[in-house]
Amino acid sequence: MSQQPTPTPTIASSTVDLSAPADTLWTNARLATLDPALPDLGIIEDGVVAARGGRIIFVGARADLPADLAAEKTVDLGGRWVTPGLIDCHTHLVHGGDRALEFEMRLEGASYEAIAAAGGGILSSVRATRAASREDLVASALKRLDALLAEGVTTVEIKSGYGLDARGERTMLEAARDLGTHRAVRVATTYLGAHALPPEYAADRAGYLDLVCDTVLPALAKAGLVDAVDAFCEGIAFSTDEVARVFAAAEVLGLPVKLHADQLSDLGGAGLAAEFGALSADHLEYTSDTGAAAMAAAGTVAVILPGAFYVLRETQKPPIDAFRRFGVKMAVATDCNPGTAPITSLLTTMNMAATFFRMTVEECLAGVTREAARALGRLADIGTLEAGKSCDLAIWDIERPAELVYRIGYNPLHQRIFQGQ
Amino acid sequence: MSQQPTPTPTIASSTVDLSAPADTLWTNARLATLDPALPDLGIIEDGVVAARGGRIIFVGARADLPADLAAEKTVDLGGRWVTPGLIDCHTHLVHGGDRALEFEMRLEGASYEAIAAAGGGILSSVRATRAASREDLVASALKRLDALLAEGVTTVEIKSGYGLDARGERTMLEAARDLGTHRAVRVATTYLGAHALPPEYAADRAGYLDLVCDTVLPALAKAGLVDAVDAFCEGIAFSTDEVARVFAAAEVLGLPVKLHADQLSDLGGAGLAAEFGALSADHLEYTSDTGAAAMAAAGTVAVILPGAFYVLRETQKPPIDAFRRFGVKMAVATDCNPGTAPITSLLTTMNMAATFFRMTVEECLAGVTREAARALGRLADIGTLEAGKSCDLAIWDIERPAELVYRIGYNPLHQRIFQGQ
Ligand SMILES: [Zn+2]
Ligand SMILES: [Zn+2]
Repeated sequence: MSQQPTPTPTIASSTVDLSAPADTLWTNARLATLDPALPDLGIIEDGVVAARGGRIIFVGARADLPADLAAEKTVDLGGRWVTPGLIDCHTHLVHGGDRALEFEMRLEGASYEAIAAAGGGILSSVRATRAASREDLVASALKRLDALLAEGVTTVEIKSGYGLDARGERTMLEAARDLGTHRAVRVATTYLGAHALPPEYAADRAGYLDLVCDTVLPALAKAGLVDAVDAFCEGIAFSTDEVARVFAAAEVLGLPVKLHADQLSDLGGAGLAAEFGALSADHLEYTSDTGAAAMAAAGTVAVILPGAFYVLRETQKPPIDAFRRFGVKMAVATDCNPGTAPITSLLTTMNMAATFFRMTVEECLAGVTREAARALGRLADIGTLEAGKSCDLAIWDIERPAELVYRIGYNPLHQRIFQGQ
Repeated sequence: MSQQPTPTPTIASSTVDLSAPADTLWTNARLATLDPALPDLGIIEDGVVAARGGRIIFVGARADLPADLAAEKTVDLGGRWVTPGLIDCHTHLVHGGDRALEFEMRLEGASYEAIAAAGGGILSSVRATRAASREDLVASALKRLDALLAEGVTTVEIKSGYGLDARGERTMLEAARDLGTHRAVRVATTYLGAHALPPEYAADRAGYLDLVCDTVLPALAKAGLVDAVDAFCEGIAFSTDEVARVFAAAEVLGLPVKLHADQLSDLGGAGLAAEFGALSADHLEYTSDTGAAAMAAAGTVAVILPGAFYVLRETQKPPIDAFRRFGVKMAVATDCNPGTAPITSLLTTMNMAATFFRMTVEECLAGVTREAARALGRLADIGTLEAGKSCDLAIWDIERPAELVYRIGYNPLHQRIFQGQ
C-alpha cells in the first residue's frame, strides 16, 4: 500500500569500514529497513545486509553493494523479507506466579471481594514475586521470553514493580539482567518501584516514596540495574505529585524516565511525562490534546498497549488521531503482565493495535521496531536496518509485510539474528 | 474453581478388553476428561490413560487401574495435565491467496469500492482458490494446519466454499482430505457451496442453487468428499428459503447439515437449522430466544466464533446467557478464513470467547473438545477421555486448566497424541 517508488537509500556508510570482509552477507532479501530517511517502511527490493563484529556494515540494494566487499559467509534468503529484530518496549515479563485462578473466578462472576479474599489482585503477584528466588523468577520468565523470541524479538524491556521492597525489586532486576545471559537478547531494565503501594506501607504513602527515592532507586542505580525509571500514575496508584518526586530522584541520578499514564482516567500523566522529557508515556487511553501536544514537543513516544485494553474490555481508545496530528511517535508493546495482559505475542499485539485502534500496518511495524527503540532511548543502536547499528534481524516467510499484522496466532518467522548471529 | 470432589468415574470399560496388554500407558497425569458423567471438567487427579490399537482402553485414577494390565510402554507424565485432543470444528482452512492487502488498505481508510476495485472481498478468495491446484491448496493450508496442530488440535473441520463451481469445490475438498494424509490429524469435510453467489451466476441465483443441489453436492457426496453440508444464511448470502433447498438436498443424501446463522442479522437461521436437525448453527450473534429454544430442542450445538466477531469489530454478542438458560451446548472454533478471521490459534480463540463473551474456562475447554465433537456428530468417537474412544490427547505444561484460556500467544503444549501415537 502507498509505497511510493523508493529512492536509493543513502546509508551513512562513511561511519563503517567496508574494506575489511564482512562476517556474513545476507543476499536476495526484501528489506523493510524502517530507515527514517526512506518513505513508508523503507523498503529495498533485492536487498543485501552485511555485518561484521555484530554490527551492520552495509544495507542497500544489491546493485549498490561495493563490488570488492568480501564475506566469510553468504546466505541467500530466497526473496524472504527482513525487518529489524522486533523490540518489545514495555513488559513486566519477570514476576512470580500467575493470575489464572483470578481470571477463572472473574468469568464465573466472582466479586472483587471474593477475588481479594482468594488472594487475587496485584498484591497476589507481589506476594508470589517476593516468595520467588532469583532463579525461580528467571525460570518462569524464560518461558515467556522464549515465546517472544520465537516471533523475532531481539530486545525486550523488563520492569520491576512486583517486589516493591529493596530486596524484591533488586531480585527482579537481577533476574531481568540474567535473562540476557541465558538467551541471545538485549534486555533493557526499568525500575518501577512506584507501581503499587506495598501492604506494609498501606498507611504511609510518603514513607514508601522516601524508600523508593532515597534508598532503593539510588542503590539499584549504583548496582547498574536500572536503565530507566517508570511509575504508575493513576487514581489507584500514584498521584502526579508523587510521580514527580520519583522522576526528580531519577533526574538526579541521570536516569531517563517513562510513565504509565492516563490509562483509566486523565490525571495529566502525559503532560507530566513530557515535562520531565520522558522517553515514553504508555497506555494513554484518556490522554487529552494538550497532553499529546506536550508529548510531541518533548519528543516523548506514545507506547500503545492494546493487550491491556483488550483484557480490561476498555472502550476508551488512545487518541491515535491526535498523536498523528501532533506528530507524536507511536510504539506498540505487549505490556506482558500477569494481571491485565498475560500476552506474549508481539505479532498478535500488532493485530490488536490495528483492529482496535486502526493503526496502519506501517504504524504497527514501526511501533515494534524504530519507535520502540526510540521509546527505549536506543534508536542510535537498534530499531532500523542502517549501517552502524547492531545487526538484529527478523527474517520472515511472507509475501508482504502486512501479513505480520494481518494474521492472528500464526508465526512466519524464518530466522532471528541477534548481533550478527 | 468450583470443582466439587470428584467421584470415582465409572468408565464403560465393559466395552473394551483389559486382558490384553496396552500399547501405551500414560501415568502420573492430571486428567481433564470432559466426561459428561463427571462434574465440571471431569478431573481425575493422579490419573492414568491406557491405549491399544489407537483407542483408549482405560481412563481413571491410578488406584483403579487393573493390577494385571500390562503395557508395552509406560510414560510418566510428571503430573502434567492431559485433555482430549483439541477439535477445531469450524474452519475454512483450505483457500487460495490471503487478504493481507485488503486488510492493509482498509486500515488506510480505503473505501469498499476501492478495495473491490483492487480485487478485494470474498470473490478475491474465490479467484485465488480457483487458480490454485490441489497441491497449491494443500501446501498453503499445511502451514495453517501446522499452527493448529502445534497447539494440540487432533481434529479439524474444513469447509469448501471458495471454489463454488464443480471443479473448484471438488479440488478444495480433495485438498482437505489430503491434509489428513500429510499430517496425523482427523479431517472432517463440509461442503459449503452456498457460501457466496459465484460471479458467473450473479444474474441467476436459482440456477446456482440448481447446480449446488442437483449436480455438485450429489457428485461430491458420491465421491465420499462430504461429511456434512453447510450454508451461509445472511442478507449478503442466501435466504432461508434458499438454504432450506440446500438442506433438503443434503437430507436426501443422508448428510448432516450445519449453518452459518444470524451473524449479521436475525433471519431466523438458528430456527431453520434446528428445523432440519442441524448438528450445529454457527456465529449466532443475532439469534433470538426463540432460535435458542429451537436449537435446544433439536440438540443443535451453538458454535461460537469470537475471531470473526473481533476482526469485524462487532458489538452484538451471541446470546450466551440464553444458550445457558435453554441448555444449548456451546462449541468454540477459529472460523479460520482469509477475510474475517485469519486466525490459527484455538487457544487465543478460547481467550477471546472468555474475554468478549464471558464464557467460563469450563465452557471454553468443553467448547474445543466435547462440544466441538458433538458439533461434528462425532462425540461417540472423540472429544472426551473415555474408554472406547480414539486416543487423541493433548498433554500440557500447566498447573491448572485455566491457563489454557488465560494466556494469549503462549503455547504450553508438551505433546500431542493422535490415535495413540
Ligand atoms: Zn505496564
Ligand atoms: Zn465460517
